[in-house]
Amino acid sequence: MPTRSTTRAPPRRHDAPVTDRPGLFDPVLARGDARAAVADDAWVAALLEVEAALAQAGADVGTLDRADADAITDAARLPVDAGALGEEAAASGNPVVPLVAQLRARLDGSAASGVHRGATSQDVMDTAGMLVARRAVAAITADLATAADAAAGLAATHRDRPAAGRTLLQQAAPITAGLRFAGWCGGLDAAVDALAAWRPAVQLGGAVGNLAAFDGHGRAIRAALARRLDLVEPVLPWHTERGRVAELAGLLGRAGAAVGSVSTDLVLLAQTEVGEVREDVPGRGGSSTLPHKRNPVAAVSARAAAIAAPGLVASVLTAASLHEHERAAGPWHAEWRPLTELLRTVGSGAAWLADSLRHLAVDTDRVAASLDVTGGLLLAEQATTGLRARLGHAAAKELVTAAASTAQDEGRPFADVLTEAVGDADAVRALLDPAGALGEAAGLVDDLLNTRKDRP
Amino acid sequence: MPTRSTTRAPPRRHDAPVTDRPGLFDPVLARGDARAAVADDAWVAALLEVEAALAQAGADVGTLDRADADAITDAARLPVDAGALGEEAAASGNPVVPLVAQLRARLDGSAASGVHRGATSQDVMDTAGMLVARRAVAAITADLATAADAAAGLAATHRDRPAAGRTLLQQAAPITAGLRFAGWCGGLDAAVDALAAWRPAVQLGGAVGNLAAFDGHGRAIRAALARRLDLVEPVLPWHTERGRVAELAGLLGRAGAAVGSVSTDLVLLAQTEVGEVREDVPGRGGSSTLPHKRNPVAAVSARAAAIAAPGLVASVLTAASLHEHERAAGPWHAEWRPLTELLRTVGSGAAWLADSLRHLAVDTDRVAASLDVTGGLLLAEQATTGLRARLGHAAAKELVTAAASTAQDEGRPFADVLTEAVGDADAVRALLDPAGALGEAAGLVDDLLNTRKDRP
Amino acid sequence: MPTRSTTRAPPRRHDAPVTDRPGLFDPVLARGDARAAVADDAWVAALLEVEAALAQAGADVGTLDRADADAITDAARLPVDAGALGEEAAASGNPVVPLVAQLRARLDGSAASGVHRGATSQDVMDTAGMLVARRAVAAITADLATAADAAAGLAATHRDRPAAGRTLLQQAAPITAGLRFAGWCGGLDAAVDALAAWRPAVQLGGAVGNLAAFDGHGRAIRAALARRLDLVEPVLPWHTERGRVAELAGLLGRAGAAVGSVSTDLVLLAQTEVGEVREDVPGRGGSSTLPHKRNPVAAVSARAAAIAAPGLVASVLTAASLHEHERAAGPWHAEWRPLTELLRTVGSGAAWLADSLRHLAVDTDRVAASLDVTGGLLLAEQATTGLRARLGHAAAKELVTAAASTAQDEGRPFADVLTEAVGDADAVRALLDPAGALGEAAGLVDDLLNTRKDRP
Amino acid sequence: MPTRSTTRAPPRRHDAPVTDRPGLFDPVLARGDARAAVADDAWVAALLEVEAALAQAGADVGTLDRADADAITDAARLPVDAGALGEEAAASGNPVVPLVAQLRARLDGSAASGVHRGATSQDVMDTAGMLVARRAVAAITADLATAADAAAGLAATHRDRPAAGRTLLQQAAPITAGLRFAGWCGGLDAAVDALAAWRPAVQLGGAVGNLAAFDGHGRAIRAALARRLDLVEPVLPWHTERGRVAELAGLLGRAGAAVGSVSTDLVLLAQTEVGEVREDVPGRGGSSTLPHKRNPVAAVSARAAAIAAPGLVASVLTAASLHEHERAAGPWHAEWRPLTELLRTVGSGAAWLADSLRHLAVDTDRVAASLDVTGGLLLAEQATTGLRARLGHAAAKELVTAAASTAQDEGRPFADVLTEAVGDADAVRALLDPAGALGEAAGLVDDLLNTRKDRP
Repeated sequence: MPTRSTTRAPPRRHDAPVTDRPGLFDPVLARGDARAAVADDAWVAALLEVEAALAQAGADVGTLDRADADAITDAARLPVDAGALGEEAAASGNPVVPLVAQLRARLDGSAASGVHRGATSQDVMDTAGMLVARRAVAAITADLATAADAAAGLAATHRDRPAAGRTLLQQAAPITAGLRFAGWCGGLDAAVDALAAWRPAVQLGGAVGNLAAFDGHGRAIRAALARRLDLVEPVLPWHTERGRVAELAGLLGRAGAAVGSVSTDLVLLAQTEVGEVREDVPGRGGSSTLPHKRNPVAAVSARAAAIAAPGLVASVLTAASLHEHERAAGPWHAEWRPLTELLRTVGSGAAWLADSLRHLAVDTDRVAASLDVTGGLLLAEQATTGLRARLGHAAAKELVTAAASTAQDEGRPFADVLTEAVGDADAVRALLDPAGALGEAAGLVDDLLNTRKDRP
Repeated sequence: MPTRSTTRAPPRRHDAPVTDRPGLFDPVLARGDARAAVADDAWVAALLEVEAALAQAGADVGTLDRADADAITDAARLPVDAGALGEEAAASGNPVVPLVAQLRARLDGSAASGVHRGATSQDVMDTAGMLVARRAVAAITADLATAADAAAGLAATHRDRPAAGRTLLQQAAPITAGLRFAGWCGGLDAAVDALAAWRPAVQLGGAVGNLAAFDGHGRAIRAALARRLDLVEPVLPWHTERGRVAELAGLLGRAGAAVGSVSTDLVLLAQTEVGEVREDVPGRGGSSTLPHKRNPVAAVSARAAAIAAPGLVASVLTAASLHEHERAAGPWHAEWRPLTELLRTVGSGAAWLADSLRHLAVDTDRVAASLDVTGGLLLAEQATTGLRARLGHAAAKELVTAAASTAQDEGRPFADVLTEAVGDADAVRALLDPAGALGEAAGLVDDLLNTRKDRP
Repeated sequence: MPTRSTTRAPPRRHDAPVTDRPGLFDPVLARGDARAAVADDAWVAALLEVEAALAQAGADVGTLDRADADAITDAARLPVDAGALGEEAAASGNPVVPLVAQLRARLDGSAASGVHRGATSQDVMDTAGMLVARRAVAAITADLATAADAAAGLAATHRDRPAAGRTLLQQAAPITAGLRFAGWCGGLDAAVDALAAWRPAVQLGGAVGNLAAFDGHGRAIRAALARRLDLVEPVLPWHTERGRVAELAGLLGRAGAAVGSVSTDLVLLAQTEVGEVREDVPGRGGSSTLPHKRNPVAAVSARAAAIAAPGLVASVLTAASLHEHERAAGPWHAEWRPLTELLRTVGSGAAWLADSLRHLAVDTDRVAASLDVTGGLLLAEQATTGLRARLGHAAAKELVTAAASTAQDEGRPFADVLTEAVGDADAVRALLDPAGALGEAAGLVDDLLNTRKDRP
Repeated sequence: MPTRSTTRAPPRRHDAPVTDRPGLFDPVLARGDARAAVADDAWVAALLEVEAALAQAGADVGTLDRADADAITDAARLPVDAGALGEEAAASGNPVVPLVAQLRARLDGSAASGVHRGATSQDVMDTAGMLVARRAVAAITADLATAADAAAGLAATHRDRPAAGRTLLQQAAPITAGLRFAGWCGGLDAAVDALAAWRPAVQLGGAVGNLAAFDGHGRAIRAALARRLDLVEPVLPWHTERGRVAELAGLLGRAGAAVGSVSTDLVLLAQTEVGEVREDVPGRGGSSTLPHKRNPVAAVSARAAAIAAPGLVASVLTAASLHEHERAAGPWHAEWRPLTELLRTVGSGAAWLADSLRHLAVDTDRVAASLDVTGGLLLAEQATTGLRARLGHAAAKELVTAAASTAQDEGRPFADVLTEAVGDADAVRALLDPAGALGEAAGLVDDLLNTRKDRP
């Protein structure tokens, strides 16, 4: 009968921090906690965690002595050199083979032979990859949620502030700043929800997926392993059925798109000629030779991260499409790096976006000034509607269209031209008041904020 | 008070068939019903359906007379020339502008002015796009489900049939044919479930997303429109928040990966040198000059479709990442064609895969023969295990490894070499019986088939 | 001895126009002549052209009677139904098999048996594909060259016009409008040169690439075929060596990037708040409800086309990476549609960009006004340099930085703040004259224009 | 007048080795010298090399004292910590800003102020990036050339060896092994030639590309810099005209496709059921539990590398498509990581492929045995041709088709069935001799090998 070990924790838990030194471009291109979560050290830690949990799962089921499982767990706590492991991995194609050799060398007898029993390298790599991905996804989700919260705060603050709405990069009609920020929040919330619903699974199948080397206890050990690692237990091994990996890539692609779209808005709104927002981070974004520059470094970096993501999604999906037979000749290895890069870059985008939004200063004067840039032209639709009662629909439209045309051609304020045409300055002032053109913007902001009341 | 129209159906329902003539490569590259679902005629029909439903939604809420809504609905039933519409679309950038002009020209008075009231072109295009995508997704899901059912049937039939398992394209150890087919089924079922859970949403926001031109009834009309079209009502307009589109692209990428992986297996198993399966479709796959050729045309075509998908996912995600402000200057238009192509190609892959699997002939003799190709070598692991009791672990492993090496180097059957080494032909026969090496394959097949009991 | 036929031209020449009706989205998303060049009709015409040229090549070499070759050429002139061909193609996987059957049915005796002699379907498909691609590339190149010429004209016209230079979407320092336009021209010229240097090749190998069915005349016929079609003769068949196709995809990707970058500039410069350019096309870009809108429809459409291209390049490259053995089980078919789409979309981008640039109106007042937006701040670097002689480097920098900071924080013109600090209004005016900050812009424009003197 | 420094070399030359410790997956996924060429240390070295060369170029032109240039060059030789640089880079968005600060801190007076004079960060980053890419491309090209040479050797050795040709993964007709290997060689040679023709360019434009901070000597300094670094001098700055980068991505995509296609052939030919080749590397590719496994580790790893490449090409092209104005808000940063990854992965593929081909053992018995797998069926086309004289075309075809059908349906050797039908065993033996079906294979091999005579 299996004994229970209550004192031996697995060597890592999935909320444990991991450390790794960032590379030259990482502070710009691999911001946030996702980078460390997918770093070599984190991978090695995850591999060791899986080997230890596999041993304990064997003990849970009774195919391994608990003492041996505990010895293996202890051995899996000792440090391992990731680089050296990599070098040895080249002969077999993956780092699990040399890692298992190292673990066995630290043990003897039944404990040594109990290491990795029944499993294939891919069982351990895939399960560890899920642990790595879960930690990275948690980091990404947290940063996206921070960004969404910041956007929600901005939406509430600027709920009723009229602002210029733009379509095809042309001013079109008024909105509220709050509606814009609510739109950001909604997109980020949806990306968070989608990622948060992702459920990683354990992998266990043995060499060809039939669990043959587990003496009939394979599914039981798989269940115990899933329980210990808090992973979903799949119905079948998924060595070459990579739907789970493709799903994750799709979710990350969606998250990257949310980051990209919001950060594109940010760099456009921060343009010198628009200036409605800026990132208020002392000491960042300046230029030694151009003292007036206030570059929105965080939004620019978030955007850079998002641009790189779709290609990586394609690489992961391509690999997923090509797996053959019981374990694949290339597509499996092809997955590791693009998936890691995808987690890194989406993580970077999420972290930078959270940074940008948390430090975002809204220049309310410039927001108001934007509304006047066209001299009232972006109220043309409202003016037409307002003049209908007085002139009839056709005449109203004709008058407004002519006035708009004159204003643009002659470079004069639309308000002036329209006043001449209508002959009633007060009426024109009312017609061109953005407050009348905001539609249901405030209600939409409230609706969005109401959806957030039950968020964790 | 709004009147109810019980007699006027929308011009199309989402289960209605659409027709379109296939192009030169379509029967090979755009198989199945997804092609017609995304064809020009289907788009025009969907655009008209949305305009009609928008009018009826106005009547539901009371902002439009029911008689006008009915007149608009009738006008939307008249035929429209897709090509001519396209030509006119070039001036405005989308086909809704000329379509609305055509509708208005068919009506007069309050009905004419009620067409498209309050909406912007993108409202209609996006909502119609969701209808189009829903029909295509339904076709894809149906074909994937057919494929999955066929795989499940194969899994049940061949539940206990020993077969060679292969890793890195090398024979590794025995599995069952049933386990392989169950793996296909599981991947396809998961792709079906993911697509089936996708929920398209209505789009309604007006020019800049604040519903300003709906006189305060925007959200009410949006709700009525969603109800009429059986679409989700979103909290906010999503003109530039393309998470829904990115999500769909990800799901289609995943479905494509499932198709690609299974079809890769099929073409490999159908190889002349393996020959474990073939597509049994009289008159297809032959060659006039090579009378012996039996090309697995369906699997080849499914694989071709899957290969094209990931790049299209990247295109859709890139577009989704770049949307700015209230409506985007390029990224929106950039979405249409890649998304359409993605639906077409995944649809084609699903249809061809269903065709392949429904006609799949398993050559049980060749399946059995594959197990003998190595002269018993792929039972080496079992032989080692079996000799442990007799020789001890180390000696057993050494003996088996040496015999395997000799067999390979000298090109002799492993069974013969091992018999010489062990000196007991009956024992060796038992050691090399694949039936002993199948592990939990049968149980795994049963588990998978059990998950399908509640499927629709 | 082979007879010479001087009177029989091949049924199509590669400069001949082809016609095809555009689809619903084509006028927006498949502008220009590339669409028709890759349409079904064009493909069928190219397939027939290859079959005719193959017959004539046989006659050139003496393996086929000239009269039979001429009869085949005549038969290849008769109309063929592309859609029907497609339907029949599904059984064999490509349209050449039914096309050859149709041709043979139109002939008899030695002419019938001479059709397609020795060739495999892929020989004809690949060669025809090269003809199709050549026509599409010619259309793309012509449109890109038109766009480049227009940019060169703008560069010459605005050679010395000071304009605001922007980095990270922030105004940074002055440039000239001419330098910006020269940059566009240079990128487009380079894309043209790269595409113009592309050399398509003939494909001829027979079923497995060894030319076995040509009775020893395979390479001679291949040479004659290459001569007749004005294609490169390759050393080896390239049925599964798709470097040529990958090369073309890369070149189109580069062309798409050039289109994307210039059109991104255009939509940004046309922004309401910048307004330095607009597309002057009467009747286009307007909005019925927003009479002031002047959307840069051509630039927006060009940008949309460019966004879709990179994913298609990935699809083509993926297919190219996967070809196996003598002819591939999927990757070959996977090439057709993405390559066609890539030619269409890059062609559309090139056509729209040419349209945009040919109609581009530069608003010189707005160009000048942009320089004043920061109140002289973008001359800060020049001011520092200019004050060095008077104050020393450190003091000059400190003074300018402080003035820039004050101007930004207090929202005052930099010129005013600087004048207060320096105490010499004339000197400050000179320091803030953009004419002094243009560097070698004019010379760079001249250099670029000089490189164009020898262009065809 | 400028003095000449003949004794001071730039700190690195582009043939100098760089070192960097490989990560966990690098020995598998980043094989070869490209990895080190793009590593952080190599980037820092290149950045320093550019700063030193820029100073020397100033001295060449006379805008900087040679002594100051030499002092800067010496300072650029001192070690710099890449990780620390990265941390500081986050504030400005790139590592050049802190690197210049470090260099200046090591110097004083005119030398300190001469560092980086007139340049912008992107000038140095882009130029250094070209140096980095050149070194990586050199490594890739060398490995591809090694692979091509090995393939050429195999083609020469097996020039006349009959082998089974396969289409759609079905045996189709005989080829020679030499023709297959020649095909590999041709594809690799073409990829080498394309990469070898790539010409990287220097970047120099200053903050907004007008060379304003070079006091009129900008183009002269640019020329000197290009000379010193052996880079092309461009006509215009290319800060946002990324055709060069897109071109490189396309070339690497093509190289990746060549690697992918050949390695796909390798893993298929090494299949247990085919076994025509294996990688003969002692101690590699084995399995501890499966003693018979001889995994083609090098080919599998090459294939994995190739699968990841197309998505990275898409990422680079997307970034290139989006650059705006004088320097871009995101797309520039978005380029670094995908381009680095692309160089790494294509480099890895090239190195592994060279390894595989150099160690490739051709099992000539298995090659011969493959020809017999169908019992002569793949000579069916030759049999038809051979029987024409005796029976007439129609009767010959009918007889052969019937015999092929019988053989397949009854599982009997085609030779036996055909002998019964023809009644002449000797004649049938001759008809089914593959030597008669090889066509011009030998000549094609010779043609390919002849093209290589002038290779460096």
